[in-house]
Amino acid sequence: MPGEHSSKQYDTDLETIRSKVLAMGGLVENQFQDAISCFRTGNVAQAEQVIKADENVNNLEVSLDDACSHLIVKRQPAANDLRTVMATIKVITDLERIGDESTKIARAAKSITERGVTTINHYETIRVMSISASNMLHDALDAFARLDGKQAIRLIAQDELVDHEFRSIMRTLITFMMEDPRTISGALDTLWVAKAIERIGDHAKNIAEYVIYIVEGKDIRHTDYAASQLEDRTTN
Amino acid sequence: MPGEHSSKQYDTDLETIRSKVLAMGGLVENQFQDAISCFRTGNVAQAEQVIKADENVNNLEVSLDDACSHLIVKRQPAANDLRTVMATIKVITDLERIGDESTKIARAAKSITERGVTTINHYETIRVMSISASNMLHDALDAFARLDGKQAIRLIAQDELVDHEFRSIMRTLITFMMEDPRTISGALDTLWVAKAIERIGDHAKNIAEYVIYIVEGKDIRHTDYAASQLEDRTTN
Repeated sequence: MPGEHSSKQYDTDLETIRSKVLAMGGLVENQFQDAISCFRTGNVAQAEQVIKADENVNNLEVSLDDACSHLIVKRQPAANDLRTVMATIKVITDLERIGDESTKIARAAKSITERGVTTINHYETIRVMSISASNMLHDALDAFARLDGKQAIRLIAQDELVDHEFRSIMRTLITFMMEDPRTISGALDTLWVAKAIERIGDHAKNIAEYVIYIVEGKDIRHTDYAASQLEDRTTN
Repeated sequence: MPGEHSSKQYDTDLETIRSKVLAMGGLVENQFQDAISCFRTGNVAQAEQVIKADENVNNLEVSLDDACSHLIVKRQPAANDLRTVMATIKVITDLERIGDESTKIARAAKSITERGVTTINHYETIRVMSISASNMLHDALDAFARLDGKQAIRLIAQDELVDHEFRSIMRTLITFMMEDPRTISGALDTLWVAKAIERIGDHAKNIAEYVIYIVEGKDIRHTDYAASQLEDRTTN
């Protein structure tokens, strides 16, 4: 909301934080991509790198939360400006959780390889879903970078697609398990990976909701706001 | 931190928010208990009530977040006081997520009953774990109410117990599934319930970490602080 607040210094400080949050976003995006790549290739060394990289993400969460608090105390922002800081704090939490979920995927990949369950590679089962979630995350960070409410609204609708893909994966894996009970352990590992990907979609959706909160001042969590906006545009 | 801040009005406003957060905590505690009870009895009407009650929890999240923002803008708290508000905002997020997880348990209970999968009741499988998580949640809310850092430290250690129980449940369910593939669907429902309970334990742990942040001013997320404190007390 340019021109609506008093302090230029506030703008500068906020921009510094925002660019660090975006850097954190880049880190977790890589973490997620690499984790999926480990699941595909069974590369244990890469899996360990993903797990190790989570420390950086965790440290960023703590230091960025701290920077947001400092900003509030030092600049005492008005309601309008505070909204952006509050939403940014929430975005940071979601990014950290995406890091956690990526770590879970990497751990699953590592454990599958180490147990030597090489009979079935379930990468194909989760491929489409992981691309969808990866696009969602990318778009969410992009919407946050450009404070693009319309992009945020579009991507919220995509979360249903990811949820749908998750349910379809579950049915596929159940069929596998029933046909050959020896595949149960491997199928469950894949199920946890799919669950982690579904959660990453949820977190991307949360980030999009905070973008709308920043841009439009509307708290649309737990509402059908995004769907209704999309309908408006289709019918008009 | 009595005496360290300037405004009496700030204290009053903060206490109002804190008591509402505790009321929200009471709500999600009931939601969790009721969800487990549905899983035990297969009571669909009660499951629907749990799902319905989540609306109240969601509304509380939005209105309490808003109250925290108002408090900051109106009272412009110093760093010390702001810490409590920030931690309270994070606690609110965790409580809302516990509501979500309880809803998932209720949905699973409903779907099991409606599909008529009455051959095995897996309540016994998850009973001990659900009691552990329930105690953790209760203690976390208690520590938040009394700002009791010691209680918070004790309960953080319990999260490992819940994680351990989760892994043991997973092994039990895999055995079930391998022995009789017809039980796979029902076992997976139970696995999701167990996962939701494990997540509730995580959220209770998060709340405990925020209590320590309020009381001691230390951000102990992603550290072994709680474990080291417990060791100190054992060896001294």
